[in-house]
Amino acid sequence: MANHEIFDCGDVTLQSGKVLPAARLAYRTHGRLDAARANAIVYPTHYSGTHDSNAWAIGPGMALDPEKYFIIIPNMLGNGLSSSPSNTPAPDAGPAFPAVTVRDNVLLQHRLVTELFGITTLQLVTGHSMGAQQAYQWAALFPDMVQRVAPFCGSARTSRHNWLFLEGCKSALVADAGFADGRYTVPPVRGIRAFARVYAGWAWSQTFFRQRLDIEKLGLASMEAFLTQAWEPSFLAHDANDLLAMLATWQAADISADPRFGGDLAAALAAITAKAIVMPCRTDLYFPPEDSEIEVSHMRDAELRVIPSVWGHMAGGGINPEDAMFIDAALKALLAR
Amino acid sequence: MANHEIFDCGDVTLQSGKVLPAARLAYRTHGRLDAARANAIVYPTHYSGTHDSNAWAIGPGMALDPEKYFIIIPNMLGNGLSSSPSNTPAPDAGPAFPAVTVRDNVLLQHRLVTELFGITTLQLVTGHSMGAQQAYQWAALFPDMVQRVAPFCGSARTSRHNWLFLEGCKSALVADAGFADGRYTVPPVRGIRAFARVYAGWAWSQTFFRQRLDIEKLGLASMEAFLTQAWEPSFLAHDANDLLAMLATWQAADISADPRFGGDLAAALAAITAKAIVMPCRTDLYFPPEDSEIEVSHMRDAELRVIPSVWGHMAGGGINPEDAMFIDAALKALLAR
Repeated sequence: MANHEIFDCGDVTLQSGKVLPAARLAYRTHGRLDAARANAIVYPTHYSGTHDSNAWAIGPGMALDPEKYFIIIPNMLGNGLSSSPSNTPAPDAGPAFPAVTVRDNVLLQHRLVTELFGITTLQLVTGHSMGAQQAYQWAALFPDMVQRVAPFCGSARTSRHNWLFLEGCKSALVADAGFADGRYTVPPVRGIRAFARVYAGWAWSQTFFRQRLDIEKLGLASMEAFLTQAWEPSFLAHDANDLLAMLATWQAADISADPRFGGDLAAALAAITAKAIVMPCRTDLYFPPEDSEIEVSHMRDAELRVIPSVWGHMAGGGINPEDAMFIDAALKALLAR
Repeated sequence: MANHEIFDCGDVTLQSGKVLPAARLAYRTHGRLDAARANAIVYPTHYSGTHDSNAWAIGPGMALDPEKYFIIIPNMLGNGLSSSPSNTPAPDAGPAFPAVTVRDNVLLQHRLVTELFGITTLQLVTGHSMGAQQAYQWAALFPDMVQRVAPFCGSARTSRHNWLFLEGCKSALVADAGFADGRYTVPPVRGIRAFARVYAGWAWSQTFFRQRLDIEKLGLASMEAFLTQAWEPSFLAHDANDLLAMLATWQAADISADPRFGGDLAAALAAITAKAIVMPCRTDLYFPPEDSEIEVSHMRDAELRVIPSVWGHMAGGGINPEDAMFIDAALKALLAR
């Protein structure tokens, strides 16, 4: 049973100049929009996630309280619910699906928020990982609309090292001849498994495994169980072209890729007027805190709060209660400003 | 022109109980053994390296001074010069090549040192990465023989996270159906390229790429050049089964896998009597300094010297002059004790 709605965007001209016909944005909302249309929060999804992946951060008494706020979760293009290689008809299906950017995502989300709901101000935009990249993009594109921004375990521009990690994952997938340049008729299972195994090494920290938290906290009996019971099924649930479409969005993420900024990241960050709390995880291997620190140094009203966790990038995934509470406390503090 | 010698070991029973027939150890020496046979140093090779990869650390005026020391560089099994899947005749060729351990390597090296050269004391055993793992193994197996040990960017036991990184590389290679479970007739080029691209993300640090040192120090014009001109050719020069044989040795590395220690790493480290300087690199992503710190805490006479570099694991590769000098200075200090 689908627990989301679809916003039909019509034919959309993308940042690349190509057209995505009959674009669809899947979304879910929590709570009710108030009469002044002034209590909305946007909370985009992360890589390979859906609106359900964000549910952990929403609940009564939490920062994202549906009794207080109207929380909109737009699904990222490519995730299999919004327009994606796997659900777009020919001639734009599969490997022919046009490349979309974080900016393309946010412009459609902006249409959803303004055209469908008539919202002109957002109390907060927040998100994890690629969700954080979309939050940065929102704040840079719509400074008059976004009152607060809280990116966690993400970046305003994909770093060169992050690009390289993703390139390794991609290479593993396409090494499977069954991928056939995206024109497979049966899923390239071998390639997706390899993709999952490469990815798994990056998502947690060295210390997470040294402390055997995969066994003691996640309850997976062995490293092989960790791979075959957790990581491989998680990615095998996705279409391979969808995985690569989202990966390409990630590799190209850059809020400064805009005529106003001409690739000047510092200028793009300085254009953000929202009150901000930026939360990298101390042990994140692909969004390391150093990058967030540099970003914060260019922002007008931003605080750096490093999540003191050994869960690496997954500190932002809501699995570890301590990390979830850390993020929730920061969101509460920011919403109170 | 080969610049190495071969030590024929005959049929060797391995740690697994299997027999490697007509085992061969390729080695190179620098300098001359003195009359007392008391000036020898052993300096094993790292993953996918040969004796030539170690040459940077040897020279007049350096710690490893061939005018003073007799420096023996044994090539690791699986590297294509010592016994390997690629150079062993049927029925032990290719994928049938038996699994060898770091301990198997060191026991053959011990035979080379004692039987061929009549050496009973070693001034130093040192090495980078898997070379460091062999150095640890030497010191744990032959405490009466090894006077000093200096592992850099390595470990006494492969960590669970390090195992996972390697598993990702392996998965990318074998995702290529052309690998055919090791029974390929033409090299599985697509898989080896994927292997190289996965590996590349781990070998350097996030900061290395943030500072664009790949461009400014290595002279590679772009990330794609970095991959296609440096990493892919480096691994394409190897046989795929050789790469996987060395990888299996690495994944299983553990000086405590010994009846004397029964898997107790602290006990195995405490059995080391050699004076030691252990040198992790501050930004090494697979041999992080935390692991070295734990190791040092269990050793009797060990000093931790963290290489203050952003070159990640490659700080131990001799490419960056500052790091090479740091290691050389530590080796000099250790040899002076």
